[in-house]
Amino acid sequence: MKAHVYVTMKKTVLDPQGQTIARALNGMGHTGIAAVRQGKYFEIELAEGISLEAAKAELDQIASEVLSNPVIEEYRLELIS
Amino acid sequence: MKAHVYVTMKKTVLDPQGQTIARALNGMGHTGIAAVRQGKYFEIELAEGISLEAAKAELDQIASEVLSNPVIEEYRLELIS
Repeated sequence: MKAHVYVTMKKTVLDPQGQTIARALNGMGHTGIAAVRQGKYFEIELAEGISLEAAKAELDQIASEVLSNPVIEEYRLELIS
Repeated sequence: MKAHVYVTMKKTVLDPQGQTIARALNGMGHTGIAAVRQGKYFEIELAEGISLEAAKAELDQIASEVLSNPVIEEYRLELIS
């Protein structure tokens, strides 16, 4: 089983990296770019035989405790069986 | 229009960050984690009125020239109209 985890800054938190990229792209002539937000992306492979519920529970724990900082970041989980 | 860009290391390239995360998770007791690959994730907002074809062409150029290093990375593009 595979899972994808997307970690981005909370909408209420300033994303200076994303803003810098957007400004740079505009400066390079890509004026059609209105905004950019940057985040982290994880592809996780789980061992055989784990149930969907157990996988989801474990990934939720990993995403909230290890892969993201809940104070400023939020995550989205996609299970790909 | 919105787009998501996923940038990951090429499969042929070692991903030390991903391996370190996987080992750390196993050490924390998450033994169900077989492998982890880490990448970058971008949410891009495009200005109104751009056509789907123009948006795709511009994003392909941005993803390959700015957001990723084609020597060691590959990208995947998702257009969300």
